[in-house]
Amino acid sequence: MLRIDKTDGGARTGVLAMPRGEIRTPAFMPLGTAGSVKAMMPQSVRETGADIILGNTYHLMLRPGAERVARLGGLHKFMNWERPILTDSGGFQVMSLAKLRKLDEDGVRFRSHIDGSEFFLSPERAMEIQRLLGSDIQMVLDECPAFPATRADIEKSLALTMRWAKRSKAAFGEQPGHACFGIVQGGVFADLRARSAAEMIAIGFDGYAVGGLAVGETQGAMFETLDATAKLLPADKPRYLMGVGKPDDIAGAVLRGIDMFDCVIPTRSGRNGQAYTRHGTLNLRNARHADDPAPLDEECACPACTKFSRAYLHHTVKANEIIAAMLLTWHNLTYYQDLMQSLRDAIAQGRLAAAADDIARIYARPSESS
Amino acid sequence: MLRIDKTDGGARTGVLAMPRGEIRTPAFMPLGTAGSVKAMMPQSVRETGADIILGNTYHLMLRPGAERVARLGGLHKFMNWERPILTDSGGFQVMSLAKLRKLDEDGVRFRSHIDGSEFFLSPERAMEIQRLLGSDIQMVLDECPAFPATRADIEKSLALTMRWAKRSKAAFGEQPGHACFGIVQGGVFADLRARSAAEMIAIGFDGYAVGGLAVGETQGAMFETLDATAKLLPADKPRYLMGVGKPDDIAGAVLRGIDMFDCVIPTRSGRNGQAYTRHGTLNLRNARHADDPAPLDEECACPACTKFSRAYLHHTVKANEIIAAMLLTWHNLTYYQDLMQSLRDAIAQGRLAAAADDIARIYARPSESS
Repeated sequence: MLRIDKTDGGARTGVLAMPRGEIRTPAFMPLGTAGSVKAMMPQSVRETGADIILGNTYHLMLRPGAERVARLGGLHKFMNWERPILTDSGGFQVMSLAKLRKLDEDGVRFRSHIDGSEFFLSPERAMEIQRLLGSDIQMVLDECPAFPATRADIEKSLALTMRWAKRSKAAFGEQPGHACFGIVQGGVFADLRARSAAEMIAIGFDGYAVGGLAVGETQGAMFETLDATAKLLPADKPRYLMGVGKPDDIAGAVLRGIDMFDCVIPTRSGRNGQAYTRHGTLNLRNARHADDPAPLDEECACPACTKFSRAYLHHTVKANEIIAAMLLTWHNLTYYQDLMQSLRDAIAQGRLAAAADDIARIYARPSESS
Repeated sequence: MLRIDKTDGGARTGVLAMPRGEIRTPAFMPLGTAGSVKAMMPQSVRETGADIILGNTYHLMLRPGAERVARLGGLHKFMNWERPILTDSGGFQVMSLAKLRKLDEDGVRFRSHIDGSEFFLSPERAMEIQRLLGSDIQMVLDECPAFPATRADIEKSLALTMRWAKRSKAAFGEQPGHACFGIVQGGVFADLRARSAAEMIAIGFDGYAVGGLAVGETQGAMFETLDATAKLLPADKPRYLMGVGKPDDIAGAVLRGIDMFDCVIPTRSGRNGQAYTRHGTLNLRNARHADDPAPLDEECACPACTKFSRAYLHHTVKANEIIAAMLLTWHNLTYYQDLMQSLRDAIAQGRLAAAADDIARIYARPSESS
């Protein structure tokens, strides 16, 4: 399923071919949390260069409900996105958003953060929901310990996550054209990561995610963990670093052999008036942009940059105009997809280390805070 | 400037030709209040069929400021809308939105509803702002009495409005390719409307607006006032009914000789989950849409209707997804432009009375309230 065209050190570039379309790797997946990439039309998401988006099982099971989406023809049709969709298992959001959680061997019972109604998520139900949604890449249900966690906490969580991974794989069953990914946990402990990776590989998945990172640890600790973990994963399967990250996080992770990413940053920042550019981040709320006729990023081809000035973006952010969220989201997603293309090009040309250094330098500079 | 191609009773259809583009009449102008038609990209506004949009002098003078917009190359460039823009004079919003108003012969001093800072609007300043914005059709500053008002109040207001209209016209001066419209006031009193119309015509404008309607009076009172007023206005100049209205208000006003309209309804309703359709209004928040795979309006060509289901619109409205505001605004503006096209066609074919009756029947039915 994964075709690797070129490697550069530990990094790889290629194509993950799926029935609904090819995913160029390394790939960035915009978040389509509750059936919409926020503030974007699906066609515009595609125009930014996205080959795949992510849907959140937790949000979709609460509202509108997986059975309802299935009755309406599946998530692709529902949200008018015909290309691949990866769905998470809901485990992470249950831990971070839901109320009155009660976790046991079987699964987790919780109350909706929307209306307090009760739900139950088990490995079997998580996979059933993802199948009902019609997800192309389905993730096993894992338990996500909060950071910082003790080694003992993580070991205990790891054992449960492993048993749930087996049940998830069994529940996934046979779905031709669809993939099931395992998730390697283990916090920042290299030996626990190794144990988790070995156990996941023993179960056998179509791809392997690295979970439990970008939860508060330093970038250095994250990179060390990736150094220890990525090389243990099968070279012929896609590797997905969940929930990461800033441009320099992504560049460093690609350098360490990661193929897929998702992150809330480009969409959420866009709604908050923050732009990612080739020169670092800009806070469009800042008064110094009020009279600036220049484009946000003169090298960017998105509508925010080709049709509007920084002064206009400043004005519409300040005035809480919806178009500010639309334009800055469009821009940030374009920037992220351009970033991925530049990383793919750098790998193909054997100059990834230098390219990743450049990105790290830009994002190490003090940026306008939001 | 106004070319009338066909009349049908008091109604007319034709083209108002301006350097920035032709305006097919009767025309509906979407609101681009603060430099954005809310939740819409300018290109999408054009795709709905809009030939002209409206900008609000009050909002733009407060933020980002008329001088700033002028420095940035004018409102068209600022908001990326190259076709005609009509701006109001700010008088109505000063009365409805601003704080601590102090009105005298010279003008009105008030405080911004945004940050309390002080501003002054006079006929001369209102015209200066509209010139700085680069507005194609500029409106005189009028004084807008609240409804209900006594005859004495309206007479007094009318006298001031008249003196301001003269000063506005003088301040407009000579602006080749740009138009200045007078505003006929007089409440629901036919003789005061007649006096106001005569005085405005004596000053001499490029077009005439009917102001002070749709402020709380019944539709019947509005239509009676139009019956009395429209026929007094020069047949060769465009007639603009300010702030109107629902589809049946528009159809009835076209029947009575009105050529131009603006109204907040399609955009504001769109952000509130309400859709205007060929079968009346729908409140997408209503649970009965949750499982409905049908399009909002099977005859509509907008993206909301061709790419999504009522179930999706219901879900995204309930989940406060920005795409709900984007899609429903797009749909409502498309509906309004389709309505205007159907009225233009009906006039051209001499069957406007029947067409207006059909629209009145649809919108007289009980609709889903929002």
